[in-house]
Amino acid sequence: MSHPHTPPFRVAISTGGGDAPGLNAVIRAAVLSALHRGWECYGIRDGFAGILAPKDYPNGGVIHLTRDTVRGVTSQGGTIIGTTNRGHPMRYPTVGPDGKIYERDRLDELVNGLAAYGIDALVSIGGDGSMEIAAALARKGVRVIGVPKTIDNDLDGTVSTFGFDTAVAFATDCLDRLLSTAQAHQRVLVVEVMGRYAGWIALHAGIAGSAHAILIPEIPFDIQKVAEKIQRREADGRYFSIVVVAEGAKPSGGSVSVIANEAGRERLGGVGDKVAHALQELTGRETRLVVLGHLLRGGSPTTFDRLLALRFGAAAIRAIDEGQSGIMVALNPPIVNYVPLDEATSRMKTVPIDCDTILTARDMGISFGNE
Amino acid sequence: MSHPHTPPFRVAISTGGGDAPGLNAVIRAAVLSALHRGWECYGIRDGFAGILAPKDYPNGGVIHLTRDTVRGVTSQGGTIIGTTNRGHPMRYPTVGPDGKIYERDRLDELVNGLAAYGIDALVSIGGDGSMEIAAALARKGVRVIGVPKTIDNDLDGTVSTFGFDTAVAFATDCLDRLLSTAQAHQRVLVVEVMGRYAGWIALHAGIAGSAHAILIPEIPFDIQKVAEKIQRREADGRYFSIVVVAEGAKPSGGSVSVIANEAGRERLGGVGDKVAHALQELTGRETRLVVLGHLLRGGSPTTFDRLLALRFGAAAIRAIDEGQSGIMVALNPPIVNYVPLDEATSRMKTVPIDCDTILTARDMGISFGNE
Amino acid sequence: MSHPHTPPFRVAISTGGGDAPGLNAVIRAAVLSALHRGWECYGIRDGFAGILAPKDYPNGGVIHLTRDTVRGVTSQGGTIIGTTNRGHPMRYPTVGPDGKIYERDRLDELVNGLAAYGIDALVSIGGDGSMEIAAALARKGVRVIGVPKTIDNDLDGTVSTFGFDTAVAFATDCLDRLLSTAQAHQRVLVVEVMGRYAGWIALHAGIAGSAHAILIPEIPFDIQKVAEKIQRREADGRYFSIVVVAEGAKPSGGSVSVIANEAGRERLGGVGDKVAHALQELTGRETRLVVLGHLLRGGSPTTFDRLLALRFGAAAIRAIDEGQSGIMVALNPPIVNYVPLDEATSRMKTVPIDCDTILTARDMGISFGNE
Amino acid sequence: MSHPHTPPFRVAISTGGGDAPGLNAVIRAAVLSALHRGWECYGIRDGFAGILAPKDYPNGGVIHLTRDTVRGVTSQGGTIIGTTNRGHPMRYPTVGPDGKIYERDRLDELVNGLAAYGIDALVSIGGDGSMEIAAALARKGVRVIGVPKTIDNDLDGTVSTFGFDTAVAFATDCLDRLLSTAQAHQRVLVVEVMGRYAGWIALHAGIAGSAHAILIPEIPFDIQKVAEKIQRREADGRYFSIVVVAEGAKPSGGSVSVIANEAGRERLGGVGDKVAHALQELTGRETRLVVLGHLLRGGSPTTFDRLLALRFGAAAIRAIDEGQSGIMVALNPPIVNYVPLDEATSRMKTVPIDCDTILTARDMGISFGNE
Repeated sequence: MSHPHTPPFRVAISTGGGDAPGLNAVIRAAVLSALHRGWECYGIRDGFAGILAPKDYPNGGVIHLTRDTVRGVTSQGGTIIGTTNRGHPMRYPTVGPDGKIYERDRLDELVNGLAAYGIDALVSIGGDGSMEIAAALARKGVRVIGVPKTIDNDLDGTVSTFGFDTAVAFATDCLDRLLSTAQAHQRVLVVEVMGRYAGWIALHAGIAGSAHAILIPEIPFDIQKVAEKIQRREADGRYFSIVVVAEGAKPSGGSVSVIANEAGRERLGGVGDKVAHALQELTGRETRLVVLGHLLRGGSPTTFDRLLALRFGAAAIRAIDEGQSGIMVALNPPIVNYVPLDEATSRMKTVPIDCDTILTARDMGISFGNE
Repeated sequence: MSHPHTPPFRVAISTGGGDAPGLNAVIRAAVLSALHRGWECYGIRDGFAGILAPKDYPNGGVIHLTRDTVRGVTSQGGTIIGTTNRGHPMRYPTVGPDGKIYERDRLDELVNGLAAYGIDALVSIGGDGSMEIAAALARKGVRVIGVPKTIDNDLDGTVSTFGFDTAVAFATDCLDRLLSTAQAHQRVLVVEVMGRYAGWIALHAGIAGSAHAILIPEIPFDIQKVAEKIQRREADGRYFSIVVVAEGAKPSGGSVSVIANEAGRERLGGVGDKVAHALQELTGRETRLVVLGHLLRGGSPTTFDRLLALRFGAAAIRAIDEGQSGIMVALNPPIVNYVPLDEATSRMKTVPIDCDTILTARDMGISFGNE
Repeated sequence: MSHPHTPPFRVAISTGGGDAPGLNAVIRAAVLSALHRGWECYGIRDGFAGILAPKDYPNGGVIHLTRDTVRGVTSQGGTIIGTTNRGHPMRYPTVGPDGKIYERDRLDELVNGLAAYGIDALVSIGGDGSMEIAAALARKGVRVIGVPKTIDNDLDGTVSTFGFDTAVAFATDCLDRLLSTAQAHQRVLVVEVMGRYAGWIALHAGIAGSAHAILIPEIPFDIQKVAEKIQRREADGRYFSIVVVAEGAKPSGGSVSVIANEAGRERLGGVGDKVAHALQELTGRETRLVVLGHLLRGGSPTTFDRLLALRFGAAAIRAIDEGQSGIMVALNPPIVNYVPLDEATSRMKTVPIDCDTILTARDMGISFGNE
Repeated sequence: MSHPHTPPFRVAISTGGGDAPGLNAVIRAAVLSALHRGWECYGIRDGFAGILAPKDYPNGGVIHLTRDTVRGVTSQGGTIIGTTNRGHPMRYPTVGPDGKIYERDRLDELVNGLAAYGIDALVSIGGDGSMEIAAALARKGVRVIGVPKTIDNDLDGTVSTFGFDTAVAFATDCLDRLLSTAQAHQRVLVVEVMGRYAGWIALHAGIAGSAHAILIPEIPFDIQKVAEKIQRREADGRYFSIVVVAEGAKPSGGSVSVIANEAGRERLGGVGDKVAHALQELTGRETRLVVLGHLLRGGSPTTFDRLLALRFGAAAIRAIDEGQSGIMVALNPPIVNYVPLDEATSRMKTVPIDCDTILTARDMGISFGNE
């Protein structure tokens, strides 16, 4: 790759943050769409580390992405160009002269690095952090398009993000498996899923997987109410229950004490662990915790997520071709549209507590632990 | 079930037309939602045959639907109350005095039959035909809510229908399986999928499953162009190709002759058979046909379809509770809304030929056989 | 069900112990095979509780099993007749006059209960405990056939048991999902699977799912060796590793101390928790624990398990028809044969440490933590 | 790759014949096992074409197989080194001086080609043809180990072959999907699966997928008996049936006439097409044909097949290390053993008509069309 900037037009792609099913599909569609326009495509290795930490990459910090490079990756989990948690370019950890670690803004280095590689435009795939970097790069004059990535589905600017459907589908599969066992063993099973700020995964998987109670950040729960739900089921002859808990679920005032008393149990399982312990105490029924955690982050994307990711990848290149910059592609069914990067991450999309999905759950007798 | 109409409020449910993954989930959510309101629920057997052909049902043409009846059915294909192609109530086949079969309007009998069972409201789940019946019943004063069902996704009133995601997911799974074999055997594989009037399944599965050409009703194809796509691939060293064909795909003027010459081949495989035969002739490469057909109609719904179906079922009962009638529930992401039944089926939703999904496919180098 | 014993011949079926995918398939094949011979079939509810605790079953402690009862259950997890951990009939927990709980031998009551229901033969599906009860019943003159059930695959009398393939398949699916995430996050993931006495699940899933180390009860591990394996991978540029741990894996003498020092961490995660903590300490790399536990016990059986379970169910009825009693059906590929119940559970089938599967793993560079 | 033969020891791998899930897993285990011994590994491209047709491979007819080359391929369908139907080395199609195509024995060229590449041993993965070539090479002094491949499971020398479990699992999945639709549409569905000489796939999938009749090559069928089975079901109120047909199933004398009369229908669907047509005529019920064909050949292997393929791949290298040659690795549960190549393919393994799996099917009321 010769450094002086000559045609053809060059697009760089970067994937940042945690794993999400569909990253490779975004890359594939972007690469094929760029090649289709006669452009060249390069992947920056491990987020922006390929540029910011060049000495770690003796074979080069960017990968030339060709038709062959992206063959067959649509259905593969992970990202072929790597991602990283090593450091946010605007707050990059650096050892100071005193040996302590300081944060340093390396954005200008990143801008210069992109220029040195002759990059004409950047497709930045990632979450909040990546969108923040993209917005800052755009303000510095880099032509950049963001592609949103969060399996939590908690981004306000887009109706869906890839990876979410895969996470919900696998969580539902797990609930299906646990149901017969809960019944056979006459147990209460508490299943903790991702969702620190929004309860989308817990809500969707809980309904589809026939959970009996669903605890989400948007609806503070009273552990007594949850226990009562289980007891009502037992009175009705059903000696088993499944409680789905989002990792960000929080008890309302009244129920804190029961849970908080469990000293020493706060380390591993988070809220799921506390809920499981409290329910066993309150109901007297053997209670087990299953933490799905990392199982929901990876794997082969569902068809829905494959298609969404491919559409996002192609739309990012199309946006560049249209002269766009500083925007994020978003799904606003049935169309893909553009959202200014500055607005894109300014608000979270939490579960509206009166949405029809919540109403569906309530009508089906599912408890949210608050009534 | 005593016939004189006394409280509690009684809801009947009917499923009409062909199989679609998610029917049982609609039923389950509707039943639980009705019970939650203190109502009773009854399923009419085999479409409306349970009422119109009572002597075929010695044990009764309606089934009392309880919490136990709908336990565990969310993930099951088919419909626990049966469906039927036996006869449209407004054009019911009847043997006349001359022994010939005539069509007879039995709508009044249906209205009376519902009244005789003390039914206060009807949830009619089905396709065009069922919505037409529902609209007619509403005009006769029956309180009726429609729930749309078409795995072809071709209904204009709603952004999605349950069953479609399942069909696309399975078709994509099949394409995944066929890809390595096409490559190993160096063959052209033509894969025919459902879609008589709209190419949604072919388009979505074709993109997600990495097809090389996709033929849909909305874009008339020139078989020569499809053959050229395959030949360009061969010139590039790829001695295999996958062509996805919607059953309603049609050749444009110029290519009719090549296909039409194949006398005697029109019986079984429809357009897929013709395309496969013509491609083998035009490219000289061994070509095989795989018809997915019925494989796409049934089976356990995906999580996406489960949730959509559950939301529709609960929304139908909620609509009754709100005093609605003559409407169809519909998805308008992120909400479920109501559409007048008369409008619901008046227009088809075909693939807009300039939608971003088509653009995505073109950018990825997929041919639609027209250029 | 009339109590005086009259023809036709009556078979009772009982399922005991924990959940295992395939129980319903055994029941279905047994019921259809019995009906095929003109016999009747009854399911005892919840292990033997339907007979020993009749007052808990106001509608009867046994269920008449018909063609309709078993329709469609082949693919369903759980057991339609229930299982129980309530009490082993030979050591049944009973409240004594002093209010304390004593164990009581209620085997004669069980024999009499079966006779009172007019049962001519019993098919007892379950693990060690159920086979012990079956053997004791046979000695008391009951005609009884055992069907082995253990997803751990640790029963010496049979080459395979149903449920094992399902457990291995799902554990492998989980490893597939975790692999891309481990790589993206540059983490060590410790995955604990079932296997208290035998490492079959860990071994098979670990190899099929490309784990880097597998710790099983049969090969005591040295945690230092496991850490060295991870460090060798890092030296080779692979900053992630997956370690599969059977719940019964044990450290060899030398490594106990490292693990045992972690006071207070022994509660939840068992050996997996200890291994994860020790590896983080030894390698300095962030380490996460995923406990699959109950996820492996339930769910829809794989095709392999369906077929094996159906063969077992039919074989049990065939054995009764041949006049057998006191035997367990077993798989000795390609045939199903009979094993005396007394011998059936006398020895465990652990992983032979020089079997070709272990050799395969070693040749592929997988560490067992002992060299 | 330098031609003069110097250490290290060099193993070549070849995959021949049709696609089968698990080929890549064999390759991966063989490569890792060879590297583990300090050997080098090379893949011959497209069967033996990489050596016999060198001018088609400007970049070389063999691929150096490294740890990186085989990363992540365990779960991938197809074969990374290609397979071919281009020509059997002992009967290679060659254009003669008269322009006609003759078969020529190019075995010596193959022996010399392997020597020229410095190959010390060959692992030949494939079906009958590949084993015949391997045996001939062994007789010429090449050190060669065969790895059997047939998804039909019809090889006598081994209890299982990889790919079979995947084919059966997918066929069963298809039957699951078709069942609810057959019921909803009140149809007879005929499902044709692979199995030219042996009915293993039809038998196993048919039982696991709850088919009502199964037609296999080993049991000549009377189409009248099949129709009677369908009619008995209708008399019992079940207006749908599923008939699984192996492509090699044959009518017995009495039923030939009914099927043979269907002139012009013999082209596409083979026996399935004839059976479907005859059943519609005999039963008067609408009958549809689904041909699974190529869908069963490819795709990601099941965990069972992954493990079997990995064991075979490692065993092949172990056999070389032990000084073996002229043998095929085989599964004789629970061990992998060696079978002389000359014996390996001499007999087919067909379904014994009195095996317990057939008895299971009969006891469950499944018809084989012969009684």
